[in-house]
Amino acid sequence: MSIPANPWTLAARTEKMNSSVIREILKVTERPGIISFAGGLPSPKTFPVAEFAAACEKVLREDGKGALQYAASEGYGPLREIVAAGLPWKVDPAQVLITTGSQQGLDLIGKVLIDPGSKVLVETPTYLGALQAFAPMEPKVVSVASDDEGVDLDDLGRKADNGRFLYVLPNFQNPTGRTMTEARRAALVERAAALGLPLVEDNPYGDLWFDAPPPAPLTGRNPDGGVYMGSFSKVLAPGLRLGYVIAPKAIMPKLLQAKQAADLHSPSFNQRMVVAVMQDGFLARHVPTIRTLYKAQRDAMLAALTREMPAGVTWNTPDGGMFLWARLPEGVHAVDLLPKAVDQGVAFVPGTAFYADNADPRSMRLSFVTASVEQINIGIKALASAIRAL
Amino acid sequence: MSIPANPWTLAARTEKMNSSVIREILKVTERPGIISFAGGLPSPKTFPVAEFAAACEKVLREDGKGALQYAASEGYGPLREIVAAGLPWKVDPAQVLITTGSQQGLDLIGKVLIDPGSKVLVETPTYLGALQAFAPMEPKVVSVASDDEGVDLDDLGRKADNGRFLYVLPNFQNPTGRTMTEARRAALVERAAALGLPLVEDNPYGDLWFDAPPPAPLTGRNPDGGVYMGSFSKVLAPGLRLGYVIAPKAIMPKLLQAKQAADLHSPSFNQRMVVAVMQDGFLARHVPTIRTLYKAQRDAMLAALTREMPAGVTWNTPDGGMFLWARLPEGVHAVDLLPKAVDQGVAFVPGTAFYADNADPRSMRLSFVTASVEQINIGIKALASAIRAL
Repeated sequence: MSIPANPWTLAARTEKMNSSVIREILKVTERPGIISFAGGLPSPKTFPVAEFAAACEKVLREDGKGALQYAASEGYGPLREIVAAGLPWKVDPAQVLITTGSQQGLDLIGKVLIDPGSKVLVETPTYLGALQAFAPMEPKVVSVASDDEGVDLDDLGRKADNGRFLYVLPNFQNPTGRTMTEARRAALVERAAALGLPLVEDNPYGDLWFDAPPPAPLTGRNPDGGVYMGSFSKVLAPGLRLGYVIAPKAIMPKLLQAKQAADLHSPSFNQRMVVAVMQDGFLARHVPTIRTLYKAQRDAMLAALTREMPAGVTWNTPDGGMFLWARLPEGVHAVDLLPKAVDQGVAFVPGTAFYADNADPRSMRLSFVTASVEQINIGIKALASAIRAL
Repeated sequence: MSIPANPWTLAARTEKMNSSVIREILKVTERPGIISFAGGLPSPKTFPVAEFAAACEKVLREDGKGALQYAASEGYGPLREIVAAGLPWKVDPAQVLITTGSQQGLDLIGKVLIDPGSKVLVETPTYLGALQAFAPMEPKVVSVASDDEGVDLDDLGRKADNGRFLYVLPNFQNPTGRTMTEARRAALVERAAALGLPLVEDNPYGDLWFDAPPPAPLTGRNPDGGVYMGSFSKVLAPGLRLGYVIAPKAIMPKLLQAKQAADLHSPSFNQRMVVAVMQDGFLARHVPTIRTLYKAQRDAMLAALTREMPAGVTWNTPDGGMFLWARLPEGVHAVDLLPKAVDQGVAFVPGTAFYADNADPRSMRLSFVTASVEQINIGIKALASAIRAL
């Protein structure tokens, strides 16, 4: 048989697609003995295994055949109702689309809203997974300057023209851990509406606050002007791959068609399990235990940083979530530090991964939720030692 | 606050996206009392509910925290190994990508191989879900003439120039139920290789043979020239949303990046459940029971058609799978028949839904797996009555 060497022609968009730097780093850090501040993995201690076991048993006993059959692309009705009822503004369950993790929400939004060359505005820095999800649709990604309170509205005004949307992660942001203030939220929603700029609001971490809840979501202030995404990955477990999108009527039909074409529907069995687990107010009892655990680990990391780090290293104090953002001294680059740190037995993600452009080479993301307090103490000491050696 | 009427601009590709005609029909047929030959729903009788319950219990007991955590985008190692070992040609587990149903395989293949305007070749008729999955990537879909033995190679030769791939479903095709012959498979693989045309082979139904297995897959005859897709939806249950892609080295890295961006990974819990269910050779005991059931239902439908249908109605005899393809008398169109049939309490899918172009308006798809034998007898009688009335 005559076979040409390679009959495949790749789509042009594949040139814009890349493997996640983080997933590559994670492979390195899977070596035994490495303490990892790199991954965004929730602490497995928080997974309600016994409750899931009971939910599986119940779902399969009560309607096993229904749970295992094909189902509606929109999602399981009772789960859509629970999601709608749990949000702090009036949401019709018909606006809820259940997705295969909130990552899929980003993929669907990209398909429906981004043409090749479309301008998409993002925070500086921003969630890497969003950049990856949008990349196949070939947007022109534009970073909007951001400070400790959130997006810089003057810079937004300069750059918003013809933007398809602004992607924001207002609560305990990945990667910086920062939270947009109430004043900035109010001003941003007003400014975006005046600019005719839709908002894409991603809120996977909002429930993981430590001392007080974050200000209310942006989308509830102008529901027709925004898409909102949430996730069960951080309050229940990521291995079920369930998230949701709240979409206005202007785009819901196309998001639903994109969802149907992408994977028909998210696993019906998993959706029913989550409904079963959440009965009787389980989350109201469970989520506070996650907050307590993560706050203790954040505190341990802050204390260790204060104790161990040489002068010139700075960091912030996140009010919730999973990540802390640190900055190395003048002239020290996080990408140079990483191999030295791994030699010392500790890993992190260099901040450059999270910038669409003009990356800060001195920045680094440290997760405080996967490692234990004991590991945090050892790991931060090792990291400080690697910084000193550099 | 000044809010523009509608700030959203939809991507141009959304004009190519449509809701599935079938899903719209299914909504109508959910009315109580309607006997449906419309859906592609496996018989719930075949779902191994007790085995899944045992598998859930085992997975959560043995490594619940692992099963509920984030996992590799490629899929769960033991499941990739089982998939590779189960195929009738030598497959390295590294070539296996676990997907959120095989529908997601189509979405990823579209992203990686289709540019706007790319020529994609399909059978006549073809699987509607593939047309939907490819649509957002805006291909130019070209139908290749097909006969009872499979794709017409002369027509393929005339149309193949610059084609990105040929999409084929060789076993018990959806919608026609037909199976590509051994001779045609051998000739097609040879011709495609000579033309430098990659094959995308979809095989969700291959295990559902009635009297003898279908000929060997196309991909095994030239693994570097094809992508192969399989599914657990028809041999275990669709509600878990698990399928797989076998990809050659030329495209696996980009498929994996597309997968990572689309939903990070398919549910790790579900993948482990499937591994647990399949232990001890479960499929070898279970699948024959599905074959027996579906064969009896096919036979019942064939007998009812012979008994009830007026002259001029023709149909084929599928050797497996879930669907039978029928043709109405000259001048009778399936889209006109459908509302009359629903009035009589029976539903089906007009064949026009499955053509990329030049649809046969007299064709119709009848599923024989969802309805019971008793319902098949009643439903075919009602359908015949509706045809006579028309």
